[in-house]
Amino acid sequence: MNDIAADRRYMAAAIALSERGRGLSTPNPNVGCLIVRDGHVVGRGWTQKGGRPHAEAQALDEALDRAEGATAYVTLEPCFHLSPRGPRCADLMARAGVARVVIALRDPDPRTDGQGATWLRERGVTVEMGLMAAEAAEAMRGFVLRQTLGRPAVTLKLGLSLDGRIALADGSSRWITGPDARAHAHLERARHDAILVGGGTLRADAPSLDVRLPGLEDRSPRRLLLSRSPAPEGWSAIADPEDIATLDRVDHLMVEGGAEAAAAFLRADLIDRLLLYRAPILIGSGMAGIGDIGLVDLADAHGRWRQTEERRLGPDRLEVYARTRSA
Amino acid sequence: MNDIAADRRYMAAAIALSERGRGLSTPNPNVGCLIVRDGHVVGRGWTQKGGRPHAEAQALDEALDRAEGATAYVTLEPCFHLSPRGPRCADLMARAGVARVVIALRDPDPRTDGQGATWLRERGVTVEMGLMAAEAAEAMRGFVLRQTLGRPAVTLKLGLSLDGRIALADGSSRWITGPDARAHAHLERARHDAILVGGGTLRADAPSLDVRLPGLEDRSPRRLLLSRSPAPEGWSAIADPEDIATLDRVDHLMVEGGAEAAAAFLRADLIDRLLLYRAPILIGSGMAGIGDIGLVDLADAHGRWRQTEERRLGPDRLEVYARTRSA
Repeated sequence: MNDIAADRRYMAAAIALSERGRGLSTPNPNVGCLIVRDGHVVGRGWTQKGGRPHAEAQALDEALDRAEGATAYVTLEPCFHLSPRGPRCADLMARAGVARVVIALRDPDPRTDGQGATWLRERGVTVEMGLMAAEAAEAMRGFVLRQTLGRPAVTLKLGLSLDGRIALADGSSRWITGPDARAHAHLERARHDAILVGGGTLRADAPSLDVRLPGLEDRSPRRLLLSRSPAPEGWSAIADPEDIATLDRVDHLMVEGGAEAAAAFLRADLIDRLLLYRAPILIGSGMAGIGDIGLVDLADAHGRWRQTEERRLGPDRLEVYARTRSA
Repeated sequence: MNDIAADRRYMAAAIALSERGRGLSTPNPNVGCLIVRDGHVVGRGWTQKGGRPHAEAQALDEALDRAEGATAYVTLEPCFHLSPRGPRCADLMARAGVARVVIALRDPDPRTDGQGATWLRERGVTVEMGLMAAEAAEAMRGFVLRQTLGRPAVTLKLGLSLDGRIALADGSSRWITGPDARAHAHLERARHDAILVGGGTLRADAPSLDVRLPGLEDRSPRRLLLSRSPAPEGWSAIADPEDIATLDRVDHLMVEGGAEAAAAFLRADLIDRLLLYRAPILIGSGMAGIGDIGLVDLADAHGRWRQTEERRLGPDRLEVYARTRSA
């Protein structure tokens, strides 16, 4: 007899684990896995740096023989394709004697795409698929968009005043938001594979775009420039927002400004998520956060964004919006 | 034996009643009054249109002889000055046999200024002063600022996109916010004595600035223009934000735009409250809500505003900020 509420709790925990690998696991999806026996968590895993070990392998490694007869919660269907880099997780689970596997999302990768579940079922394992699939897809959105649209998931991050300014007219923007908001923004950087700025921002601010948080210094993402000119050392350049599809090992991309780069991505309808750090200040005339996005009718602006999160960060407020329309 | 928690509950109710008279009671303060006997509310009052009857007179009129031995909660010290327009409330209360009067705010008007409380005490009435004084002062802020600074309380209202735009570049702003936010904004209009716009907004939008809510049509405030040119019929003009001090019977003023009028009031440090209706849309290049406020150093922008309220209004969000610095 299964307990749906408990299943949801455990899957939510697996999804939270999967978030730990976001921006780190590429080119593999940031999967999370929890193994539970008799109401006790006996194994936890998330896809590690560069994609190996997989979440399931890591969780099984922690569980050892306690995996026998246990239930595994995994945010993505266990892989079934052969790889020189590691074992097939569906087979690992069957061999470990896992009795039941609860999967959030079926793997859209055609090399697995249901075969992992089939393999498990054929070996007598109970398999359930689809629990909290939307939440899992959101946590692995870079992988999902790469599979479905052939491009990374893109977040636009802005630090704004109440009246939507990102800097004074002379460009000064230190500081609009406070230390709590800045620390959160650095944590978000660590969860992206790459960060992009426009040429104007590079020239004006020479941003280092690194993660300045204790213990996460090595999580600084790659630095990208939206520019037709050659990139300086330590940077890569793309000429056009659509070129993000060609980026290797970038599933989660954060656009950090300026207004023209933000507008270019919005015009191309390539922003999936808005990460707005809002300070309780007024600036008045100054630099706007977003340039011309080609809007000619206000009606077209509506219905595109829904708020998914909101929290205080010291004196500031974080507002997260997700796109409502598919690209 | 008094019950502090009950006292606070009743005073909060009296403050809520006082809000009903905001924008209506001028030139008198929008006072609220609740009379309670043996745990039952026996009288309620708030200052009526044009200032009479006073809240206490109205509440006593409802209570009749149940006021005998009761406790009265009143947001402002009962008046003691002689007026041809009505009785002195301190005397009315003593004559009605009220046993105890709990007052939030001492009346700063020098014609009363403690004399109402003294009169009551001399007649054997228990008087307590200061309960929830800050909250009461906030509800009667127009009166308080008129007494202390010689000018009305000023609210700046803006309907904004996430990126701080109030209209497209061509000026079109119908609609940024939805019907729930617009209804709320109309209710706020009804609670102000006058609404001001700049000359550009008058020319571009010819706003009627009336209250279009069923039952509140007669609560439409006076229309003011910030302009050195003569005002059209049905409007009055002031040349400068400081001129609000000269306005007769305006204790609560709302500035509705545009960007230059908003900036002029902010430059003069004459905005006490921000009423921001935020729509979940991006506009990009377009009209900013606030023009040049003379900010030259970001540090000077901080610490001026604290959020006092936040709520959803359909798809939009209302954010209310109060000034933290005294003018």
